Amino acid sequence: MSDPRPIGIFDSGVGGLTVVGEMQDILPNEDLVYFGDTARVPYGTKSKETVTKFSVENVEFLMEHNVKLVVVACNTASSLSLDFLKRCFRVPVMGVIEPGARQAVSATRNNRIGVVGTHATISSGAYEKAVKKISPRYKVFTQACPLFVPLVEEGWSDKEVTKTITQIYLKPLKQKKVDTLVMGCTHYPILKEVLKKVMGPGVMLVDSARETAKEARRILDAGGLLNGSKRSGRHIFFVSDEPNRFVRIGEKFLKRRIKCVKRAV
Amino acid sequence: MSDPRPIGIFDSGVGGLTVVGEMQDILPNEDLVYFGDTARVPYGTKSKETVTKFSVENVEFLMEHNVKLVVVACNTASSLSLDFLKRCFRVPVMGVIEPGARQAVSATRNNRIGVVGTHATISSGAYEKAVKKISPRYKVFTQACPLFVPLVEEGWSDKEVTKTITQIYLKPLKQKKVDTLVMGCTHYPILKEVLKKVMGPGVMLVDSARETAKEARRILDAGGLLNGSKRSGRHIFFVSDEPNRFVRIGEKFLKRRIKCVKRAV
Repeated sequence: MSDPRPIGIFDSGVGGLTVVGEMQDILPNEDLVYFGDTARVPYGTKSKETVTKFSVENVEFLMEHNVKLVVVACNTASSLSLDFLKRCFRVPVMGVIEPGARQAVSATRNNRIGVVGTHATISSGAYEKAVKKISPRYKVFTQACPLFVPLVEEGWSDKEVTKTITQIYLKPLKQKKVDTLVMGCTHYPILKEVLKKVMGPGVMLVDSARETAKEARRILDAGGLLNGSKRSGRHIFFVSDEPNRFVRIGEKFLKRRIKCVKRAV
Repeated sequence: MSDPRPIGIFDSGVGGLTVVGEMQDILPNEDLVYFGDTARVPYGTKSKETVTKFSVENVEFLMEHNVKLVVVACNTASSLSLDFLKRCFRVPVMGVIEPGARQAVSATRNNRIGVVGTHATISSGAYEKAVKKISPRYKVFTQACPLFVPLVEEGWSDKEVTKTITQIYLKPLKQKKVDTLVMGCTHYPILKEVLKKVMGPGVMLVDSARETAKEARRILDAGGLLNGSKRSGRHIFFVSDEPNRFVRIGEKFLKRRIKCVKRAV
């Protein structure tokens, strides 16, 4: 069996491109349609009702492109809206929380897992729930870090002041002696170096992007939905605000050139 | 003549409440209808086209409340969209840039004016244009400070790290020896103390909120549109996301209790 339809991926902005990069590696023959909601970014400071409304609109847009699977490549939307999206649409919809939680569980040695994310992700308790579903023996400690996204977007990931802010945010998690830290927002991998430095060498950082791409492959495989073609996949990007800023910041996330970007509305 | 219709005010979120506070002082008998676009905040990182589309929708919402004047209490929307809004609607529409520029010009002694604001406000060149319209003898130096809004929203205005970030942003303006600094974003008055400390005692800070309220009174007066009633004005607040966060952060801006907040959409 072979299904040539594209995979749909959405995020509030550029962060989801870290997931796109892994999908391109792991599913090189699949066509991808990405939607970044740059006109309404960020989602992490907004309510469940609003994020869910936006997420439904984003999936409806992807459905117009006849996608066979939707990947919610945004921790906030995955935390607040995934269950609703799964009930609303007839294609499989998956998020980034469960893959991240699974990876954290397999990485921890002392069963103490830290999670950093937006206000909305952290207060949803989504990571605690996902980890507890695997086993109740893990302890999860969380910390909202609302300044991380603006620091990344300002291009300040190497500045001393970013290290200071990281120390302020991570102090409680260090005190809890976590040995694994989930970067629970697709922007945070850009801060990997400073997170490593502040947490110290004994702490493993978890980026859910790779695990998410692997999970997407499993779902497609199980449903007979993989694209059997041998040609390289096509990748199209849509944004709701003007494309230039998206391309400029986005290439840092994707670590590849972004060629085909269109304004969606 | 007396016109009992309310005044409409909009902002991307809570910042415009600094203008509302001054309007309540200067026009105590006027009814006010405020709209904060908290579902799509911020505007300062978005394009002219997107900010203008949102601004038109915001004014249309205020027009449903039969307003007699629209105040764009957002520096970004004033910078990018005011001319378009003035052409679109049949009531007078005013912004915060010209009042701020006028106040800066009357404050400066050495004719060197600094302006801080969002990316969008600064790259629009709106303050330079407004000051040059008054007289070409003033020099305007600008600096985008995209981290100020998230720092304010995080409640970190007193933290040492905020002072460090302020020093980084303001260094070029200090080198230009400005004696006046326009806080060109309605969030920034919350950072007044740290801005003062970093700029030093010789520099005057300009907050356009008060001048904007005075300008609103002049426009109403000139058009015979003032409310002649002796009762206190009613103040209604609408937001596009859920009201709790707006009330919590908003009371810092308004410096009064916010009672009547409704979700608009």
